[in-house]
Amino acid sequence: MHLKEYEEIKSECLNYLKKVGIQLSEKEKQNFEVADFGLGRIRKLGLQLVVYINTERYCAKELILLPRQTCPEHIHPPVNGSLGKEETFRCRKGTVYLYVEGPETKNPKAIIPDGYEAYLSVWNEVILQPGEQFTIPPNTPHWFQAGDNGAIVSEFSSTSTDENDIFIDPRINRIPVITD
Amino acid sequence: MHLKEYEEIKSECLNYLKKVGIQLSEKEKQNFEVADFGLGRIRKLGLQLVVYINTERYCAKELILLPRQTCPEHIHPPVNGSLGKEETFRCRKGTVYLYVEGPETKNPKAIIPDGYEAYLSVWNEVILQPGEQFTIPPNTPHWFQAGDNGAIVSEFSSTSTDENDIFIDPRINRIPVITD
Ligand SMILES: [Zn+2]
Ligand SMILES: [Zn+2]
Repeated sequence: MHLKEYEEIKSECLNYLKKVGIQLSEKEKQNFEVADFGLGRIRKLGLQLVVYINTERYCAKELILLPRQTCPEHIHPPVNGSLGKEETFRCRKGTVYLYVEGPETKNPKAIIPDGYEAYLSVWNEVILQPGEQFTIPPNTPHWFQAGDNGAIVSEFSSTSTDENDIFIDPRINRIPVITD
Repeated sequence: MHLKEYEEIKSECLNYLKKVGIQLSEKEKQNFEVADFGLGRIRKLGLQLVVYINTERYCAKELILLPRQTCPEHIHPPVNGSLGKEETFRCRKGTVYLYVEGPETKNPKAIIPDGYEAYLSVWNEVILQPGEQFTIPPNTPHWFQAGDNGAIVSEFSSTSTDENDIFIDPRINRIPVITD
């Protein structure tokens, strides 16, 4: 991702957080993460996040999604004898369409990014509105998309080790590379 | 605590959350916790909370403090071979005066509830404004008070077992008793 695009997306997300009344420290603003997963289609396939805390025992983040932006399907596998990351998504603003293992939902609400059907395998739909939440068991596939107005999601979880996440799409590189 | 007082405090807190844009589910509203610690002085010594999630690995709560309300000093001791609860307080609204182990702060901002000096032993002051946070190590004493306008604090932590908390004030009963 180019630095200009990073700055543009970051600025949009910071405005969204501000509008909703979620305040960040200066350090958190500096470390604001924009993940395009190396796919080069950030507004369709990507995720923005602020890591509040990540200790050896627990983790909390704020996730910010652009309108209809999709976080690609992934799994948090067992790492070093742990069970793998368990995470709770709590919708704070907007609508989130979350997909997990289970019976396939007919007529799902997500709009699949062009050509991305092949990289989405679970279709049990969970719709989250503000004040609603869902807990994803460790080592199970999931992906999610924001509704038409974007979404803000508080993530509460066990320790986060993003570099161990397994994505269905083999082209994905979880750790962002930003160029001038 | 009498049911009428519980309902009154609860209603004030739900209005505060609503004003700030933090939405709760119906179930969370029903389970809203008002803790007077058995001291019978809820507006001076107490805490209100919503437990979002509490698994065997992590926990997240929203804490709501009335203006100048104090959460009494306590410790989260080791339990069943765990280290004891580690917790991060993130201020969302208002001001929080947090006291932890360390050098005593001269002229602390907290206003001590009448006759409560004897039950407060740590005086290293941490002031939290919205967007600021602090992590309290396991098994260390801490207490906190909201500023003049109350406060809302997101708590991210390892698993919570409130019944194991140790309070300095021996009269305290952590699990609320509500009577008609
Ligand atoms: Zn995940
Ligand atoms: Zn505590």
